[in-house]
Amino acid sequence: MAKNEILSLLGMEKLLKRSGAPRVAEDAKEELREVLEAHADAVCAKAVELSRHAGRRTVKAEDVKLAAK
Amino acid sequence: MAKNEILSLLGMEKLLKRSGAPRVAEDAKEELREVLEAHADAVCAKAVELSRHAGRRTVKAEDVKLAAK
Repeated sequence: MAKNEILSLLGMEKLLKRSGAPRVAEDAKEELREVLEAHADAVCAKAVELSRHAGRRTVKAEDVKLAAK
Repeated sequence: MAKNEILSLLGMEKLLKRSGAPRVAEDAKEELREVLEAHADAVCAKAVELSRHAGRRTVKAEDVKLAAK
């Protein structure tokens, strides 16, 4: 599946403004999306692996929590 | 502003499925949102600091890229 197309650019703008950005360039939103989706992919892949290790087909919060450690 | 309310739970489900999750528990989506927004807050705060350091009021892609390093 194509990468970096799940999180919205509007969400990225909101996250940057929440951290105090007075103004946000369009390319900054795209870069943040790339950064966050790359981080998400790493955490999610690990979470899926952990759920399989536990003999489950359903990914649970405990898998994500452990994966993010 | 309240934390962990910007990214959608549907987006979190899509990210987990992209990594191969057959099924995703509701609490896993919430946990992933918490993990990603915490990571986003850290990167964004650093990006805002870097933009100020460069004498700008606009956060650009280069700030986000450097902040994520």
